[in-house]
Amino acid sequence: MTTFQNTEKTNGSLDTPPRSPVGDDKPRTHSHKESWNQIRAALESTITIPTSPTGESHNTIEVPAIRSPVADADKFRLSLSAAPSMKERRVSRNSFGAALPIPRSKRQSRLSNVTLPDTQAALGQPTRPGMPPIQPTREFLAARVQDVFSDKVKAAKNMAFVFDIDGVLVHGDRLIPEGKRVLEILNGDNELGIKIPHIFLTNGSGKPELARTQQLSKILQNPVSTDQFIQSHTPMRALAEYYGTVLVVGGEGYRCREVAEEYGFKDIIVPNDIIAWDPSVAPYRVFTEEERATARPRDFSKVNIEAIMVFSDSRDYATDLQIIIDLLRSKNGRLGTVAEDPVSERIPIYFSQGDFLCPTEHPIPRMSQGAFRIGLEAMYKSLTGVDLERVVYGKPELATYKYADEVIASWMEQIHGEERVPANVYMIGDNPASDIVGGNMYGWNTCLVRTGVFQGGENDEENPANFGVFKNVLEAVQTAIRKELGEDFRFEWDDRVNPVLHGEAATSSAIE
Amino acid sequence: MTTFQNTEKTNGSLDTPPRSPVGDDKPRTHSHKESWNQIRAALESTITIPTSPTGESHNTIEVPAIRSPVADADKFRLSLSAAPSMKERRVSRNSFGAALPIPRSKRQSRLSNVTLPDTQAALGQPTRPGMPPIQPTREFLAARVQDVFSDKVKAAKNMAFVFDIDGVLVHGDRLIPEGKRVLEILNGDNELGIKIPHIFLTNGSGKPELARTQQLSKILQNPVSTDQFIQSHTPMRALAEYYGTVLVVGGEGYRCREVAEEYGFKDIIVPNDIIAWDPSVAPYRVFTEEERATARPRDFSKVNIEAIMVFSDSRDYATDLQIIIDLLRSKNGRLGTVAEDPVSERIPIYFSQGDFLCPTEHPIPRMSQGAFRIGLEAMYKSLTGVDLERVVYGKPELATYKYADEVIASWMEQIHGEERVPANVYMIGDNPASDIVGGNMYGWNTCLVRTGVFQGGENDEENPANFGVFKNVLEAVQTAIRKELGEDFRFEWDDRVNPVLHGEAATSSAIE
Repeated sequence: MTTFQNTEKTNGSLDTPPRSPVGDDKPRTHSHKESWNQIRAALESTITIPTSPTGESHNTIEVPAIRSPVADADKFRLSLSAAPSMKERRVSRNSFGAALPIPRSKRQSRLSNVTLPDTQAALGQPTRPGMPPIQPTREFLAARVQDVFSDKVKAAKNMAFVFDIDGVLVHGDRLIPEGKRVLEILNGDNELGIKIPHIFLTNGSGKPELARTQQLSKILQNPVSTDQFIQSHTPMRALAEYYGTVLVVGGEGYRCREVAEEYGFKDIIVPNDIIAWDPSVAPYRVFTEEERATARPRDFSKVNIEAIMVFSDSRDYATDLQIIIDLLRSKNGRLGTVAEDPVSERIPIYFSQGDFLCPTEHPIPRMSQGAFRIGLEAMYKSLTGVDLERVVYGKPELATYKYADEVIASWMEQIHGEERVPANVYMIGDNPASDIVGGNMYGWNTCLVRTGVFQGGENDEENPANFGVFKNVLEAVQTAIRKELGEDFRFEWDDRVNPVLHGEAATSSAIE
Repeated sequence: MTTFQNTEKTNGSLDTPPRSPVGDDKPRTHSHKESWNQIRAALESTITIPTSPTGESHNTIEVPAIRSPVADADKFRLSLSAAPSMKERRVSRNSFGAALPIPRSKRQSRLSNVTLPDTQAALGQPTRPGMPPIQPTREFLAARVQDVFSDKVKAAKNMAFVFDIDGVLVHGDRLIPEGKRVLEILNGDNELGIKIPHIFLTNGSGKPELARTQQLSKILQNPVSTDQFIQSHTPMRALAEYYGTVLVVGGEGYRCREVAEEYGFKDIIVPNDIIAWDPSVAPYRVFTEEERATARPRDFSKVNIEAIMVFSDSRDYATDLQIIIDLLRSKNGRLGTVAEDPVSERIPIYFSQGDFLCPTEHPIPRMSQGAFRIGLEAMYKSLTGVDLERVVYGKPELATYKYADEVIASWMEQIHGEERVPANVYMIGDNPASDIVGGNMYGWNTCLVRTGVFQGGENDEENPANFGVFKNVLEAVQTAIRKELGEDFRFEWDDRVNPVLHGEAATSSAIE
């Protein structure tokens, strides 16, 4: 039922017609330009894209928060993706939201500390002490097979999968069996014994990447590296270079403080710190001893908070909304002050994603960060009379897909030694309003699965998946691989394979 | 600063120009008609007002809504004001918000159980055991004085005061000294020893009337009777006749359950009852043992909730917003269902008041019920695509002022034996956007004081007080009384007064 889906519909004019996968391997910058031009072309009918990223031109296309549901916001978001200089962004109210900085993948990679062997050990897979390890043998055989079938190998290295997680591979902590099988295939259990590049792109949030990938590795019983993993707030790591003192909101027990610390934010404040300093800020807040113990109060009337980062779902709307609005109305983020002009001294606010609903164990999806934001926007507009400018990361935001390219390219380098984005990228998701619309806009092949949010008919009416709708992730992946590698492609590695016999099993191989 | 004020501006066309007090004493129905006609005239440009209100019962009055019943949809403003029968209201989406029922004052009076002597005893005033009480003497003298100055008495009985409480008489639990003095004067400490009618009209909420008046009596050190007291949800008592099973939201520990019980609602549900039944409704809610103990869970998948009553500030926005939206989207208030058409099976929602901000001990006013509602409206619209219809009681809603007339008239009967509304009513408040705009619309004399929300200049620009702006409540009351009873009126009762000497003290009275 569509009401179950993220209601942040992207303006129809943004949907690019399903396009067939690009056959040849273009340089990524070029393929970027192509998809960017598509989006620009799609937008030009409704709004003008600023040619030069000056504050004024951005201002003319700011989002009217209370009147336009974020449906309209989506089409503006893309136009905010022209990057001004950091200096501009810091000083100008008009430019702060003008760009969504993303880290270079290398920077992200350096911070990774999950390696496949580690994970295998973590998964309790036998290391066969004193015996020669299995991998080399298979790798040796696979290498020979791959030498023979070089065309298929080229094709295999020229495709990549991008997986949404919830509703595609897992339901919360429950495995979707086809998800496990898919990862086995992509990790080498196929006729070529080849790794087919794939990354994970989720609007999930609230935990550091390492904690989340370790949890996923266990559920999926396949290694998931932080190098192939993107949460909604992962690209926001880049913001640590832009803002010193930040308010971080969301997550259980404000665990997002941990996330922000790992991202390198220098001075991190969470709402509890403020309540511990002055309880009258949130008159109805019941403050537990434990909360008081973990809070880090100081005299916030002497601190300028430079930006607000909503990393995950608020656990206390009333308190977080009050504090965020106090800060947005203040003079340059100084609590206790109220700016005469609500806009000129306002600090920026960033949200890690915009999903209105998220599927949980409750039969009806629960309200998520997007609902919180829309409530905030309406309250802010009613109180100040002006629209709230804000930046929203996460699918379907363009920056998130650009960052995905960075991660795909560096993952390609790790597994195949070639830092580039394959020509044929397949996005597999369950939410037409984030996974699919974003993939369509970005020129990916999009596959919609029926194991999550989408519960419609042949295809989603508003945001149809251009590669089709599939019963589950396994069906989608196998269809995509057959398209690229041939209908006869076998989704199983055979250790008895004899390359000379063109992949037929050599029955007497044991004797030779 | 206007940004501190309730940002719910009433449509400009509703503001009537400041009018001077009516000199002669009209029958209340007539004076009603007059002010009603003013509003009607102001409105007729946009919509038609029903001429005959149907569906009234012997102890309720249905008052057409003046506040836009639909979020951000001015074009629908007042279009729901046709008063349907109760039956219609239950079944029709268009009619539920058509009228704001209010109790007839008698019904309210019968429920009062505070009497002045009780309160005086409660205040620890000496009862002088064995000695003749003081009151009779003064009453005897006062009666003789009043016989002599019958013109002043007539004028004194032809005026009444309506007091906002917070920011006028008290700040939370702190007394504003002039507030105590004012009540002494109006309770008889004046040259006539006469009681001048006054009632209390607050957008406050969350406690039963008796509990609140007892608290106020102590703070103000003057008796405050439930018969002269109106909280934001007091008129909503009338809704108990319209709805059987209701969700009641707001108040500390959902104390509003108590309020609803006292109002006679038959089957009252609070959000905690629902969480105790199914915690997955609010995934992030931390449910304490105490909350679980006081909750009354049952199988709500078998219950139709007929209406939602927001009586006071939510203490848990996230949970209350989720449950309210679940109910608004359900089929006729059945949890776990989602209506195909978001509108036709939607249950009504009522709010006790619309103030966006309320003054607290925190230097910057905190967000209040109006902010909660605006956030809800935006979330609901984003989720369903349709506007939320809702009814908002409290100042400046017409129904609240009509109910105030009911209370004034019955209070007049209690203290002077004449059930009527005096011609010259003075509203004294601190919030231009509720107290003043409402009083202006209703044809009252409005006085704005500087001890609360209003912090502007000569007068409020959007909603100027037609009787003027005053330093504090005492200045306002004295100015009003002098206008009605003469510049020389003395605000002190003199026990030595000798009526024969026209109010001059008889120096040798002790010897005679």
